[in-house]
Amino acid sequence: MKASDKVDHGRINARLDEMAKIGATAGGGVNRQALSDEDAAAQKLLIAWGAEIGLEPSRDKIGNLFLRLEGTDPSLDPIMTGSHMDSQPTGGRYDGIYGVMASLEALCAIVDAGIKPAHPIELVSWVNEEGSRFAPSLMGSGVHAGTRSLAHALALVDADGISVAKAIEALEPVLGHVPLRPLGGKATCYVEAHIEQGPILERNGETIGIVTGIQGKHTYRVTVTGEAAHAGTAPHQERKDALVAAAHMILALVKAFEDPEDITRFTVGRFNVFPNAPSVVPQEVVFSIDLRHPDGARLIQMSNSIPEICADQAGTCSVHTTRLYEAAPIAFDEKIQKTIEDVTRGLSIRHRRMLSAAGHDAGLMQHVCPSGMVFIPCKDGITHNEAEYSHPADVTSGARVLADTLMILAG
Amino acid sequence: MKASDKVDHGRINARLDEMAKIGATAGGGVNRQALSDEDAAAQKLLIAWGAEIGLEPSRDKIGNLFLRLEGTDPSLDPIMTGSHMDSQPTGGRYDGIYGVMASLEALCAIVDAGIKPAHPIELVSWVNEEGSRFAPSLMGSGVHAGTRSLAHALALVDADGISVAKAIEALEPVLGHVPLRPLGGKATCYVEAHIEQGPILERNGETIGIVTGIQGKHTYRVTVTGEAAHAGTAPHQERKDALVAAAHMILALVKAFEDPEDITRFTVGRFNVFPNAPSVVPQEVVFSIDLRHPDGARLIQMSNSIPEICADQAGTCSVHTTRLYEAAPIAFDEKIQKTIEDVTRGLSIRHRRMLSAAGHDAGLMQHVCPSGMVFIPCKDGITHNEAEYSHPADVTSGARVLADTLMILAG
Repeated sequence: MKASDKVDHGRINARLDEMAKIGATAGGGVNRQALSDEDAAAQKLLIAWGAEIGLEPSRDKIGNLFLRLEGTDPSLDPIMTGSHMDSQPTGGRYDGIYGVMASLEALCAIVDAGIKPAHPIELVSWVNEEGSRFAPSLMGSGVHAGTRSLAHALALVDADGISVAKAIEALEPVLGHVPLRPLGGKATCYVEAHIEQGPILERNGETIGIVTGIQGKHTYRVTVTGEAAHAGTAPHQERKDALVAAAHMILALVKAFEDPEDITRFTVGRFNVFPNAPSVVPQEVVFSIDLRHPDGARLIQMSNSIPEICADQAGTCSVHTTRLYEAAPIAFDEKIQKTIEDVTRGLSIRHRRMLSAAGHDAGLMQHVCPSGMVFIPCKDGITHNEAEYSHPADVTSGARVLADTLMILAG
Repeated sequence: MKASDKVDHGRINARLDEMAKIGATAGGGVNRQALSDEDAAAQKLLIAWGAEIGLEPSRDKIGNLFLRLEGTDPSLDPIMTGSHMDSQPTGGRYDGIYGVMASLEALCAIVDAGIKPAHPIELVSWVNEEGSRFAPSLMGSGVHAGTRSLAHALALVDADGISVAKAIEALEPVLGHVPLRPLGGKATCYVEAHIEQGPILERNGETIGIVTGIQGKHTYRVTVTGEAAHAGTAPHQERKDALVAAAHMILALVKAFEDPEDITRFTVGRFNVFPNAPSVVPQEVVFSIDLRHPDGARLIQMSNSIPEICADQAGTCSVHTTRLYEAAPIAFDEKIQKTIEDVTRGLSIRHRRMLSAAGHDAGLMQHVCPSGMVFIPCKDGITHNEAEYSHPADVTSGARVLADTLMILAG
C-alpha cells in the first residue's frame, strides 16, 4: 500500500477550511500574522491534530514548531517537511498553511497506511516566513539554518515596538507546555509543499510543479536627472530630457538582457516623472529595476552591468543607480527533484519542473540538507491577496505526491 | 526728435507697479481675471491715464477697450497697439499688462514729443486673453478678428455659471459711460509688446525679441495597453509590457522628428504607468505629446505620422492616440518685423528675431492686418507664476522700441 492511497481529500480540505477561520477576514482571506493570537491558535490546533496520530510537539528558541513521527531506527536523522502558518495582513487561505496541512495529511496517510518508516519524520511550521509583522521575512528557517543570528531575530520589533522575544513569551499561555528543543540540528532532507504563486501550472493544465530552484533577484532604483524646460521654447540641442534618457536606458537594458531561452526576468515596473506636466521637459525620472535569474554568476554579471549601461545612455543627463536588494539563487537537490518526479509520474499526475520566482523556507533548508519543493496551481497566479485560491482536487494531489515522496525518503 | 526720447522710465515702471496693486496676491503676483472687479478697476485706471493725453475711450460688444489718439488724416485706418490686462489666478505682474503699459507709454511719448502722426493710433486692451475665467483663451481678439462668434463668446460661462454677457453688464457701473463702437473694423497694422515667457533673450543677453511668428502646436494623449504580470514569473515571450512599448514609441518619435535645424519641438512631458509597482509588468502607460513647429504643412505632416509611428512600435501591446489640441502656426508680417528691427538697431539695443512659443492676441490680429510683436526678457523664463519678473530697464527698452515703431508706422 502506498501512503498516497490514504490521503483523505475530505480531511485535508476540511482542515484547510478550519485553519482559514483563524484570522478570517471579511474579504474571504486571512490575517494571521507571525506570533499573533491567531498564529498561536493555529499552532494549538496543529498540535491537537498531530496528537491524534501520536506526533510529539517541540519548539525551538525562535518559535519554530515541530511535530515528530518516530521512525523505526531512532539513530537516523529526521526527514523534515512543512511550511509556515503566518500570512500577510490581507493574505490568502493557502500561502504557507497549505504546506503545513499537506505535511500533516501526508503523515496521517503514512500512519493510516500502517507504514513504519525507518527515519523519523518531522513536520515543521516555520515562524514568521512572511515578514509582514517582523521584517525581514524567512526568519524562523533562517535562524534554524544559521544564516540569521538568534539574538538579532529575537530583538526584531513590530510596528507597536513588541519584540520577537516578547511575542514568543506571550504565546506560551495560549499554547500550553511545549518542550523546548535545541536550535538547528541535522536532517536527512526537507520537502515543502506550497502554492505556486504564479500562473504557469494553471495555464499549462498541470497539477504539480517540481521546483528546481529559486531564482536570484536583484533590484535597483535608477534616478535620471535632467533639467525642466518649456516644451515650446527649449531648443533640443540644449535639453536635458530625463524621460528620453530613461527610455534609452530601458531599451538598452532590454537589449542587453535579451535571452533566447527566456530565463532572464527583467522588469521596469515603476516609472515616475517629475514634474510630469505635458508642456514641461521632464526634469527627473525615477524607475525601478527587478532582475531575476536562477544562475547566480549570470545574475551578478548582468546586475553589475546595469550602472554602466545606464550611464552610457544618459546623454546630457546624469544617472544614479542604487542596488536595493540582492538574493542569490538556490538550486534544489537533484535527487529530491528526481524522487518527487518519479512519485508524480507514478501517480499519473501532469507535472513540470519549474523555478520558483519567490523565496521560500526550503531555500534556506537547502543550506542544511538536500531539499525540494512541490508546487500546486493557484488561480490566475493571484497570491498575497484575499482572493488567493487553489482547487480542492489540486490540494489533495499535492498532499498525495508529498506523502509518497516522504515515504520513499524515509525508507 | 524721436518718440523713444520721451519714453519715461520712471513713469512706465511706476504705472506697472500701480497696476500690480489691482488684484495683488500675497505671493507677489496678481489675480486679475477677465471682467472681474479687478479687471474693471484696471480698465478705469487705464482710461484715466489715457484721458491725461487726450485718448478717447470706446468699447465693443465683447468688452475690448480702445483708447484712440487722433491722427492728422482722419481718413486713414488706425495703427493699433496693445495687449491684455487679465491674468491667470496666480499670475504675474507682467504677462499682458506690460504690453498695455508699453503702448500707453509709447502714446504718451509721441504726444510728449509733439509728434502729430498722420494715422490715428488705437491702444486696445483685449478682453479675456488668458481664458482662465472663461475658457478658451484669446476671446476678445478672436471675436474682433472674426475667428470666433460674438454670440458664442457672450454665452461662455465661468465656474459660477456667470456668462460673459452678464459679466460685461456688471462692469458698466464701475467703468462709467464708455461709448460703444462697432465690432471689428479695419486697421493698417497691429504691434504688441509682451514678455517673452521663455529664457532665450535672457540667456543670450539680448533685450528685444522681434517675433517672426507663433509656432503651431498639436497635442496628443497616447494610451498604451498591455497586460499586468508578475515580474518574477511571466515569461518575456508572453509579456505585454506597456512601458517597454511606450519607450519604443517615444524613441521612434524622437528619431522621426530629429531636426538638424532644431526648429521642431517634440516633448513627452507626462508619463503615467499603471499599476506602477516594482514587481509588476506595466499594464498601461498613458503619455502626452506636445509637438510644435512654425511651418503649418510640416507640423501637420509630422502630427499625422504620430499614430502610425506609435502603432508600429506597439509590439504585443495595443495603442490609442488622441489628438487633443491643434493650433496652426502664425507668421508675422515681414515689413513689420523689418520696421521693428530697424528701430531696435537704431537704438543700439541687442536683439534677435525669434518665434513665440505661446499664443498671443497678435496672432489673431495677423488675420486682420499686418501684425508684429516686440518681446522683452523675463527672468528664468518663468511666467504664469507669481514670481514672473522683468527688469525695469528692459520694460523701458521695450516701450522705446514700440514708440519709435508706432511713430514710423503712423507716418
